[in-house]
Amino acid sequence: MLRSVRIVGAGLIGTSIGLALAAKNIPVEMVDIDTATLALARDLTGSVEIAQPQLVIFATPLKALSEVIESQYRLNPNSIFMDVCSVKTEPILKVKASSLPLSSFVATHPMAGREVGGAESARGDLFLSRSWIITPSSESGVEAISLVKELIAELGATVVEMDAAEHDSAVARISHLPQIASTLLAIQLHGTPDHWLELAGAGLRDTTRIAASDENLWKEIIYSNADEIRQLLINLQSDIGEMIESLVDQNAIAAIIANGRDGRAKIPGKHGGKAREYTYLPIVIDDKPGQLGAIFNECAAMSVNVEDLTIEHSPGQLNALITLALSHSDAITLSNHLSSIGWNVHPIRK
Amino acid sequence: MLRSVRIVGAGLIGTSIGLALAAKNIPVEMVDIDTATLALARDLTGSVEIAQPQLVIFATPLKALSEVIESQYRLNPNSIFMDVCSVKTEPILKVKASSLPLSSFVATHPMAGREVGGAESARGDLFLSRSWIITPSSESGVEAISLVKELIAELGATVVEMDAAEHDSAVARISHLPQIASTLLAIQLHGTPDHWLELAGAGLRDTTRIAASDENLWKEIIYSNADEIRQLLINLQSDIGEMIESLVDQNAIAAIIANGRDGRAKIPGKHGGKAREYTYLPIVIDDKPGQLGAIFNECAAMSVNVEDLTIEHSPGQLNALITLALSHSDAITLSNHLSSIGWNVHPIRK
Repeated sequence: MLRSVRIVGAGLIGTSIGLALAAKNIPVEMVDIDTATLALARDLTGSVEIAQPQLVIFATPLKALSEVIESQYRLNPNSIFMDVCSVKTEPILKVKASSLPLSSFVATHPMAGREVGGAESARGDLFLSRSWIITPSSESGVEAISLVKELIAELGATVVEMDAAEHDSAVARISHLPQIASTLLAIQLHGTPDHWLELAGAGLRDTTRIAASDENLWKEIIYSNADEIRQLLINLQSDIGEMIESLVDQNAIAAIIANGRDGRAKIPGKHGGKAREYTYLPIVIDDKPGQLGAIFNECAAMSVNVEDLTIEHSPGQLNALITLALSHSDAITLSNHLSSIGWNVHPIRK
Repeated sequence: MLRSVRIVGAGLIGTSIGLALAAKNIPVEMVDIDTATLALARDLTGSVEIAQPQLVIFATPLKALSEVIESQYRLNPNSIFMDVCSVKTEPILKVKASSLPLSSFVATHPMAGREVGGAESARGDLFLSRSWIITPSSESGVEAISLVKELIAELGATVVEMDAAEHDSAVARISHLPQIASTLLAIQLHGTPDHWLELAGAGLRDTTRIAASDENLWKEIIYSNADEIRQLLINLQSDIGEMIESLVDQNAIAAIIANGRDGRAKIPGKHGGKAREYTYLPIVIDDKPGQLGAIFNECAAMSVNVEDLTIEHSPGQLNALITLALSHSDAITLSNHLSSIGWNVHPIRK
């Protein structure tokens, strides 16, 4: 049973873990070298002093890791230790080079984050329904692995076991390359007139959203995984060259766009596993309090479960478009029902 | 006053215009060379035969445009004509080379679309609150411009006037380059093991969403705007080279990531103008009918207006996380109120 946790590093991930544990009444001690950050994280998490924490979580930047490993191991030689770095080969090398025995350590990486950082952006629900990779070595102790798995379960995440080198290859592809591509695309916006950018649609917004990420976090991640990333960037650069050469040939352009669509189709649905097939029901409502509540009451009355929804409206406009994502049968049921009682329901669509 | 419209081309844009006009009881005639597509579009829009349409909209692929211009002008020499192509220089050249006088023609481009195409994906609300660019030439007639503006207003969009060459430069930057970047990134996913892709978060999903777009639409757009796109791709390729060289230097990496963040910050908020500042209120609810309705009833009771919301839940999970986007004062009001009556409200965040 998880009895007490010390979290070293009160950034987004560390403080979010602290918040989630505090909500479960598991004693947490937050530690940070920055006194202002620490004060905020302590207030948020109800941090208490723990003399001998059962589990110590390293949630510092990678560059601080070696020092923190030594000092924390000296203080708590009987604790279990884990890290939460976004790369896995290098933290394991740092532990191997330290006094901390590998048997008491498990390397981990929660697949959760935000494009904003710091204790002030922390959320206790950050890990809910997310994957949390652990990369235990053959020397990791059974007790250590078991305790770390318990921590992950407490935070509502799902354990995924993987080899450290495979982890670093995987995240280079699914996380680091998209980050760099988004950043480089956003860089091309410099020098763009403002009135052009006002025309931007969801495409530009979505492709550049993660370009808003913090450079101090990402410089470490990219630097530590540079060997994996380099080849991916070379491939991307070469594919841009192919696109440039294809600009004179519509069939060649079509082949590239189709190839990208096939690549995109490999990504599974929002919650892991295969993408769920939703049917969408657009409803135009007056943009005033009470309208959404009335619609959801009708959903409840018809036992219709809303899987997701979007709201589109602009400040100067008196109506809003709400689009409900439903199962196909629920969409038909609700569409007929809402139409019959006078709502402005548009045709359902796949 | 807009009396009657013929729409030539029953794809996503043409049929969406038809749906929107039908909803306003403006007579519409849909025309398409594909009989199955046409049958669907006619059923959707309540298409009627119009002998002498006041306005004829060219909504065909670019390659069909020259032929359609000639045949439609012969049929309706007194009509006003407009196109809706995603590039603007080339359609104007085609009109100049045709019998149709420039005085009766206005080139336009609605800034709306979906990553799926065809009449079956059409939505009457597609243009609601979107910009719709018109690029009239000095020869465009006053009557033609006025009628086209009226059409755009009927569809709920906002007219933006621009020179055709400037339009093509602008969309290369804000639309065509993001499309190609997304496609090329998605291509890198080929050969990625499925269990890696199951770890993918919102970053990979958002950056590759528009890679799902249709190659037959995009091959024409990219080909027609190749001169503008070429230089942007060369710049992007060069910036990838700089990133590759920077992989050995954390400070250089940080400078690139920061530069991307600054570029991203130039994009205005969702509805044009400056981004609105929302405060977010996370609430954990039971994943069953009635919960959302109950929350929205409380919103209405407190006169709180929900600006946007997201729902996160996974199939195996019994609760869901709903995050409401609100004004700051509404967030405080609602948070206090919901907490006091027993809802599982998490701390508000910016």
